[in-house]
Amino acid sequence: MSLSKFQLLLGLIFLFMFELTVMKIFETNKAPNPRRVRIFLAEKAIEMEYIEVNIAGGENLTPAMRAKNPTTKIPFLELDDGTCIGETTAICRYFEELNPENPLMGRTPLEKAQVEMWQRRVEFHFMLPIGMCFQHTSGYFKDRMKPIAEWGKVSGENAIAYFNELNKHFKTSTYLVGDYFSIADINLLCAIDFARVVKIRPSEEYTYLLAWYKKVSARPSYSA
Amino acid sequence: MSLSKFQLLLGLIFLFMFELTVMKIFETNKAPNPRRVRIFLAEKAIEMEYIEVNIAGGENLTPAMRAKNPTTKIPFLELDDGTCIGETTAICRYFEELNPENPLMGRTPLEKAQVEMWQRRVEFHFMLPIGMCFQHTSGYFKDRMKPIAEWGKVSGENAIAYFNELNKHFKTSTYLVGDYFSIADINLLCAIDFARVVKIRPSEEYTYLLAWYKKVSARPSYSA
Repeated sequence: MSLSKFQLLLGLIFLFMFELTVMKIFETNKAPNPRRVRIFLAEKAIEMEYIEVNIAGGENLTPAMRAKNPTTKIPFLELDDGTCIGETTAICRYFEELNPENPLMGRTPLEKAQVEMWQRRVEFHFMLPIGMCFQHTSGYFKDRMKPIAEWGKVSGENAIAYFNELNKHFKTSTYLVGDYFSIADINLLCAIDFARVVKIRPSEEYTYLLAWYKKVSARPSYSA
Repeated sequence: MSLSKFQLLLGLIFLFMFELTVMKIFETNKAPNPRRVRIFLAEKAIEMEYIEVNIAGGENLTPAMRAKNPTTKIPFLELDDGTCIGETTAICRYFEELNPENPLMGRTPLEKAQVEMWQRRVEFHFMLPIGMCFQHTSGYFKDRMKPIAEWGKVSGENAIAYFNELNKHFKTSTYLVGDYFSIADINLLCAIDFARVVKIRPSEEYTYLLAWYKKVSARPSYSA
């Protein structure tokens, strides 16, 4: 059965090449930053291979992983040639530039600036404080950082205070940037959902914020 | 002297229009984020009007200023029509898109992603910790936030630890993104200079980092 052996060998070669050459994203399915990328790619209808990394078990801290991504943060993208791109927004930028259809980072210079502005506001005034609250009150990463409970508490209070700003904004704006759904909305959506781990949710009084949430969470990309 | 009165009126009308229509940036000259924008614009040879805001005195907190920029952070850009764009990187993105000559945010999809990656790494692993160290150990903004000294101390230690990562990177890379000078280098330069306020400086052992610093601080834009 010489042909059969030859076929088997060919199959193995193809499998090996497949492993070496297919673009993939290393992530942790339940974490908020990987979800930002998954929703972004779903909105742009880009197929992707995802590799689950066991963060709690420290799989991201191995020398092999540090060689790919020195910060040890997830997600990161590995290209066909082995080049790695870390940071959620950098991964999104790569695909926005390569696949400009259905733009999510703005269509004009002004809109691109406004998307960047809201992306940053949501990160610095809500998502980052939620992350600090989680890391410093849960002790989830206490094997690799020093939690400071008081800072976690203040961060949570700062995040909650930002609900009021967001609610005021959505009184006159459909999405974060006018009537244009963007990466900034994806960011806020993922941050609000993640905030549940520290029991932070927008209360009933924030009707405009909740109306926005209902709209964006009804998009098919929500389950990505 | 009817003509003279007419000329005076014309002059006043022009002055009034000038005030209303000239694009300007509200900033605080000594703060690090406004400097990032000034260097960026100097590298692109874009002239700008700068309005000094007295942050320590709370001038950024007035209702008029909040109407322009609800986060109360500086810098922010006011366009001819009154539209305001906050967040340092959003202001830079606006000019990068309007004036693509001498690009500082990448020239290809991959390079744009790499610039964004390094911009973010420098922000999250160095500039933000330096800012936290300053705010939480100096008490500079204690009238508007609650400083937590321990968090300030840990943040300073985290920032110092990142010098080693940067030094390793510059061993094989001229700038943060290969041989391409970008907004990420401007960010790191401004953050390193600002770190002096909390007495944090790269020590002599970080020869590659210091060689990079010498190169970027020799550019004419340094004094912007």
